Amino acid sequence: MLKGPVSVLPVSDSLAAQPDSLQITALPGLPLIQPGDDLVPIILEGVSRAGLALQDGDALVITSKIVSKSEGRIVDLNTVEVSAAAQALAVETRKDPRIVELVLRESAMVSRQAPGVLVTQHRLGFVSANAGIDQSNLKGNDEWALLLPIDPDATARQIQAAVKDKTGTAVGIVISDSHGRPFRMGNVGVAIGVAGIPALLDLRGRDDLFGRPLHISMQGYADLVASAAHLLSGEANEGRPVVHLRGLNFPLVDGRASDLVRPVEQDLYR
Amino acid sequence: MLKGPVSVLPVSDSLAAQPDSLQITALPGLPLIQPGDDLVPIILEGVSRAGLALQDGDALVITSKIVSKSEGRIVDLNTVEVSAAAQALAVETRKDPRIVELVLRESAMVSRQAPGVLVTQHRLGFVSANAGIDQSNLKGNDEWALLLPIDPDATARQIQAAVKDKTGTAVGIVISDSHGRPFRMGNVGVAIGVAGIPALLDLRGRDDLFGRPLHISMQGYADLVASAAHLLSGEANEGRPVVHLRGLNFPLVDGRASDLVRPVEQDLYR
Repeated sequence: MLKGPVSVLPVSDSLAAQPDSLQITALPGLPLIQPGDDLVPIILEGVSRAGLALQDGDALVITSKIVSKSEGRIVDLNTVEVSAAAQALAVETRKDPRIVELVLRESAMVSRQAPGVLVTQHRLGFVSANAGIDQSNLKGNDEWALLLPIDPDATARQIQAAVKDKTGTAVGIVISDSHGRPFRMGNVGVAIGVAGIPALLDLRGRDDLFGRPLHISMQGYADLVASAAHLLSGEANEGRPVVHLRGLNFPLVDGRASDLVRPVEQDLYR
Repeated sequence: MLKGPVSVLPVSDSLAAQPDSLQITALPGLPLIQPGDDLVPIILEGVSRAGLALQDGDALVITSKIVSKSEGRIVDLNTVEVSAAAQALAVETRKDPRIVELVLRESAMVSRQAPGVLVTQHRLGFVSANAGIDQSNLKGNDEWALLLPIDPDATARQIQAAVKDKTGTAVGIVISDSHGRPFRMGNVGVAIGVAGIPALLDLRGRDDLFGRPLHISMQGYADLVASAAHLLSGEANEGRPVVHLRGLNFPLVDGRASDLVRPVEQDLYR
């Protein structure tokens, strides 16, 4: 993973980060994505189809699933050689040994395991279930799996640059995934790739209404954007894979999804 | 806490839960809330000030801070008697012993403690830092603390009923707070009170595009709504405490924030 320096927001700019209103639109009529597809023209056609013209400061949230498909991250499970470690873990977790093998290949370490549950630290840094491997919306059977994109931060930067090149507009790009959570039920949207938009908003030192420094200091900004888009794109819904947001009024900070990964030494739960 | 049955969404209705577009507006010009204030007329004035007229299916996200203030949940720290347990924990966590005392009074158990960190299971069920106790935007000094509302699910229901009574419209109400997370940096919006809108969306059994049941089954719906509103209301920002959402197209399920609390037996991290 390209791991840039943590890109957080200067205090002075953070005050710009609260819009009065926000318009969110799911891009209609996008085709099923095939390996090798160039997502940018497909997304720009969807923007036009929605009757929109991109403006500086717009944001596009793209589900990781179509990025993975365009990268050809589809694995035929019948070609997966299962290691002894994966076989043992598959028995413990009661999961398909081939999927467990792929999870281990995609992960730096196992965080928690239980019957039906396999939570790992992904090679991209974040902690999630099953390394984000997806079996839905593939080829209609259980014999295929979709891995997460190779380097979503880098892909987000490439898409951001290509959109700038084709349209002349500077838009924020978020590549989103759906994560479960400790303590809370239900999945939410998270950012696993970020470009041209803050990942973390640093409000440290910002005063409250009485001039007193805020205790709450950091906002998981790109995760909020991903979750807002999730209300339109839904779960694993390839029919609505790209969502457009206008009015965010975000400061021009080039964040990285890796900014949102809590360092192990700061994490009391890993 | 009033703990109703888990209210999740019938599969048939879940298909209605993805809008094409969404408009989100921060209500302008709300006054500072004082103990005893009736929030409903204040919110309805804000809706008019925004040039909006409420419609069935709109949602209002209200920060817990103004609910707490209206309930008079402000504590003068100089009146707090510190127990021996709180004193010891304050030394370990390097926090104000009076705040630690209030955290313990508001909590069912301590989840994690470290220098600068005190995470507990709140009496309302969720796990969060410092029991959601807030010292910002109070009276301009450190001598006051604001506790979370007494029963945010019940308050959300009361507000939902009063809005229905005054305007004839059925709107969803979410009372939101800002939570940090294991594994990930930055706070996000979460729902701690819910009425007239789903808390969890149950997508179990819903087919994907190829007719294959989705693996991802549950969406933390009210948390997504709270996080979307968070993009406008910001952190601890009493100037933007109420956000209006139009277009969510949520099914008429009367959720509870308690639906979003993961049962201990299902939680591998608590």
